[in-house]
Amino acid sequence: MRRLSSSKVIYEFSSDNEPAYKVNQGEPVIVETQDCFSGKVKNPKKLFEDVAMGDVNPATGPINVEGLVAGDTLCVSINKIKCGALGVMMCSPNVGFLSDDVRKSRTKILKIHSDKATFSPGLEIELRPHIGVLGVSPSKGKHPTFYPGDYGGNMDTVEVAAGSKVYLPTFVDGAMVAMGDLHAAMGDGEISGTGVEVSGEVTVRFTRSEDIQAARPLIETRTHWITYAAANTLEEASRRASSDLVRLISSRSGMDFEEAYMLASAVADLKISQVVDPLMATRMSISKRYL
Amino acid sequence: MRRLSSSKVIYEFSSDNEPAYKVNQGEPVIVETQDCFSGKVKNPKKLFEDVAMGDVNPATGPINVEGLVAGDTLCVSINKIKCGALGVMMCSPNVGFLSDDVRKSRTKILKIHSDKATFSPGLEIELRPHIGVLGVSPSKGKHPTFYPGDYGGNMDTVEVAAGSKVYLPTFVDGAMVAMGDLHAAMGDGEISGTGVEVSGEVTVRFTRSEDIQAARPLIETRTHWITYAAANTLEEASRRASSDLVRLISSRSGMDFEEAYMLASAVADLKISQVVDPLMATRMSISKRYL
Repeated sequence: MRRLSSSKVIYEFSSDNEPAYKVNQGEPVIVETQDCFSGKVKNPKKLFEDVAMGDVNPATGPINVEGLVAGDTLCVSINKIKCGALGVMMCSPNVGFLSDDVRKSRTKILKIHSDKATFSPGLEIELRPHIGVLGVSPSKGKHPTFYPGDYGGNMDTVEVAAGSKVYLPTFVDGAMVAMGDLHAAMGDGEISGTGVEVSGEVTVRFTRSEDIQAARPLIETRTHWITYAAANTLEEASRRASSDLVRLISSRSGMDFEEAYMLASAVADLKISQVVDPLMATRMSISKRYL
Repeated sequence: MRRLSSSKVIYEFSSDNEPAYKVNQGEPVIVETQDCFSGKVKNPKKLFEDVAMGDVNPATGPINVEGLVAGDTLCVSINKIKCGALGVMMCSPNVGFLSDDVRKSRTKILKIHSDKATFSPGLEIELRPHIGVLGVSPSKGKHPTFYPGDYGGNMDTVEVAAGSKVYLPTFVDGAMVAMGDLHAAMGDGEISGTGVEVSGEVTVRFTRSEDIQAARPLIETRTHWITYAAANTLEEASRRASSDLVRLISSRSGMDFEEAYMLASAVADLKISQVVDPLMATRMSISKRYL
């Protein structure tokens, strides 16, 4: 299988970016990714303040997907995520949701095993491997890879994981996908500003979606459909994600808006993806059995 | 077992309320509850606009718990929730998270079966029975039962369910608990403004908690600890719920704030309870295995 090396990365999603790789639709590739600190944090003495913001969230790519044209919806099928052997976590008075309460920056290095990570001696945490940054070229502007948006970006959403498909709108020919910032684990919210940050490899295929027309990221897991939105406030993000979900129900089931809205209120979960990126991101999830 | 009839209800949590019932600590009782419309919506012709706000969320009680004094933490152990046979859902241009998109008010009556409800012909939804309103007398003011707060109230949180314990601060002697607004099902967010609203019966015990000191509602399920907070914005509620969770980890494990904060960021989920009450409520959940 072709490997796309993590030596070629972007730190901004921008329509000015030149393609680093070109892949065919449907071709399985392994995308190698650096961790969110560009591999520069190897021990607990390196604190958040020692990391240049320009080194945060390298995303491997951009990858030009053959035959996609601006306006198509890209489908990213995630087959496998392999995490590196070491994870990094941080907290700091200068970043994160409860930064005011942090007295002193701290960095933690965690050993990653096959299905657990060692948080501290005797305290093993369950892995939940997912891709933090997954996006395409936006139509305009330069968007640092630590921001999320309608083009994807720093999605920090636990279902961007093996077995899922992520649908993204495209704004330029070839989509120009990039990805990185793998997490071996992260809780919804990512409140300290980091999950368990790892380098790794993602086995993935890119295709044009024939049936989905996405204006924002949309995630399909084996069991659920999940709409996603990022905005300045959780309320605004929630309004977009929930509105998208009601319209998804409506378009797939033929229910009118009011009926779909009540169904969502009864069975769909509005969730927080993260509160630190620095936009807020939410998602809304409904079991496929209802669609 | 003693039954507390739903003929005695409050529509405001207030320290001026007189006790309707008196129960002993540890005594199992069945609390009968009216649905959130005081039983006045029996068919789909009754729209939201036909319901007086003064009829919304009757809460059975107040129940004076023998021997509890102001400042104690009340533990409400929920043993069983039995839902009534009919559920009500509504949407309206005048209420709910996406009210601007609703063209016309609608009411839906659902048949409730043992573990499903019929949303429409052929569309069965899974039940997730829980108590919408559960609260104690606040220290001052009159708080309509459709508001949530540090005293509980309209919590609309799916884990306030059978098998859970809910810890509440108390502000008056006897706690003066009231409950109602059962939901046969509800998705996180409760975006249309209703879950599947039912009358019902709750089998419950009230005790003084000896080891927990709660300043806000705290939920213990069989598997998780869940902090809860309501505020004007999702951000503010999230900050309180996540701060409470980090402090809970810290007090139970002996970790300092920074360590507990990173653990929460790695394994605890910040979630939305509801976005319509009209304050916003969030919660943060951590598996007991980490504490």
